[in-house]
Amino acid sequence: MPPSDPNEDAQHVMSSDKAAVSRALNLVEDRRLESQARVAALLAALKDAPKAADGHRVGLTGPPGVGKSTLTSVLARSVRRRGLTVGVVAVDPSSIRSGGSLLGDRARMSFDPTDAGLFVRSLATAGEVGGLAYAVNSAVRVLAAAYDMVVIETTGVGQSEVDVVDVADTVVLVIQPGSGDVLQFLKAGIMEIPDILVVNKADQEELARRAVADLQGAIQTAQAVGAAGGQDADWQTPIVATSATQGTGIDALIAALEQHRKHIQSSLAARRRQGEVRWVLDLFSRKHGEHGVSTLGGPDRLEALAKRELDGGQTPLALCEQLSRGYVAALGKTP
Amino acid sequence: MPPSDPNEDAQHVMSSDKAAVSRALNLVEDRRLESQARVAALLAALKDAPKAADGHRVGLTGPPGVGKSTLTSVLARSVRRRGLTVGVVAVDPSSIRSGGSLLGDRARMSFDPTDAGLFVRSLATAGEVGGLAYAVNSAVRVLAAAYDMVVIETTGVGQSEVDVVDVADTVVLVIQPGSGDVLQFLKAGIMEIPDILVVNKADQEELARRAVADLQGAIQTAQAVGAAGGQDADWQTPIVATSATQGTGIDALIAALEQHRKHIQSSLAARRRQGEVRWVLDLFSRKHGEHGVSTLGGPDRLEALAKRELDGGQTPLALCEQLSRGYVAALGKTP
Repeated sequence: MPPSDPNEDAQHVMSSDKAAVSRALNLVEDRRLESQARVAALLAALKDAPKAADGHRVGLTGPPGVGKSTLTSVLARSVRRRGLTVGVVAVDPSSIRSGGSLLGDRARMSFDPTDAGLFVRSLATAGEVGGLAYAVNSAVRVLAAAYDMVVIETTGVGQSEVDVVDVADTVVLVIQPGSGDVLQFLKAGIMEIPDILVVNKADQEELARRAVADLQGAIQTAQAVGAAGGQDADWQTPIVATSATQGTGIDALIAALEQHRKHIQSSLAARRRQGEVRWVLDLFSRKHGEHGVSTLGGPDRLEALAKRELDGGQTPLALCEQLSRGYVAALGKTP
Repeated sequence: MPPSDPNEDAQHVMSSDKAAVSRALNLVEDRRLESQARVAALLAALKDAPKAADGHRVGLTGPPGVGKSTLTSVLARSVRRRGLTVGVVAVDPSSIRSGGSLLGDRARMSFDPTDAGLFVRSLATAGEVGGLAYAVNSAVRVLAAAYDMVVIETTGVGQSEVDVVDVADTVVLVIQPGSGDVLQFLKAGIMEIPDILVVNKADQEELARRAVADLQGAIQTAQAVGAAGGQDADWQTPIVATSATQGTGIDALIAALEQHRKHIQSSLAARRRQGEVRWVLDLFSRKHGEHGVSTLGGPDRLEALAKRELDGGQTPLALCEQLSRGYVAALGKTP
């Protein structure tokens, strides 16, 4: 690829130029140093741009098989019908292990390839752990500068290496009726309480009603034992019943998304900063492990340091590199 | 604690002396260097001892709330009634996050404290990641030298940092009827196929029958797509319906455990070695991250190295330390 001007690239991305967005995501997936430097330059240019879009970052998560892909495509179509643009990034860690399931998932999504206001990309990395986390974070930033809504679709439990909470403004957990295990994960505090809960495949009214009631109970239990994690106390997680295949409940989901975005409006900057701090710590500890974290002073000191650096204008990617260099240098000094 | 003779300690552990076993597990939980050195000495003495017990290492895993604790206590009582001794180590990572649930779980287990042939211990570590993995591995080795059966109880999905496959001869996955999410995890290859599947809370016959049928389908699907992971091809995972509260199905579970132990008898040494190799790699990458693994030549080379060292008589704990020193030294050389 010929060298390009990051400010020019940023302008193209901000005008929702599909080819430019696609080129940017190619760079994001490419772990070579020169590509990563170009990604960093692009992100910096987007950050300084006066009037980039500021897409609503919606994380769609949940166990495999609950219909997240179908729901994503139906949601995207409904949002498009309202005149808003949508970028979708799909992450499927299970595809790396079992192979092929990614293709199966994508096959279930249907998008109009000629629609200029809709961009869809699946992210996968062949080898390195952490590569996906790098890629997703950068991809979301690029897409948020280009589209009104960014949907990040990922598997919520298991070996998932992408914590959607780190990159999404609004976390939507999708389950199906009879998801007793997810209820247990929520109650035990193993899964964090989402901002919005969707019961998909709610084709049978009676079953859906019972599922919604069960979930309300589980969330109350989880909140009562203080397992709420980062959840904010003023927000009551709405529970929306949908049927992606029949297209029902999508308006209610969009209304809940809009309501949550309004709710977090005043705290959005702080929320995103918190997500960036978590992302930097997650990525650093994935790269350098427990020993890296303790060498740099432990999780609390590292968190304070990350917050300070990000507040001072450092980008998450550059900060990770800086911490990494600091760690290796510290090891070199103490033989 | 006064210094003690590891060979003498080993003799006490091997004679199922409860106080000695308890002292050994205190050391195991204590991450101070001198305690870890004593654990290493004890494990070496146990390894060289001509006639230590060789307890069947049974891993009991599954989502929270499926009744693992009750099942463990009922299983232990039944095994005791057959004249065999049992050691139980319970690991509950969720307790670390949500606080208090460990106590709740333990309250549901009922054991006879005066029974000399039954030992129960909950393991938890306050801070460090990886500490629990260290502790569980060593605890299992100590208990296996003292008791006929060792039950390792842990939460199977989520932030669980202990991979029970690394330490158990036989992995039992416990679920309840209507566990659609677990079925999906199995099918997607996110969860490995267990050696034995237990449907607990199978109080209603009709519901239990349907759950068993669903599971048979899921396992066939998972095996067909090759998501079997480390599972051996000659073994058909039996599905056992139990009701821990009513005490039904326990005989069938014990029969399945005995059958599996017989099945793996000839491959037991290789299986345990494989588990040790995985454990060393898991622990090393938790400690030093992606960068540590790649600096030492990548996962494949590291695996081959670990296997060679363990085959040569190195213990897993000592090997982890050795790899760690090698990594830090390599970094010191390349500033």
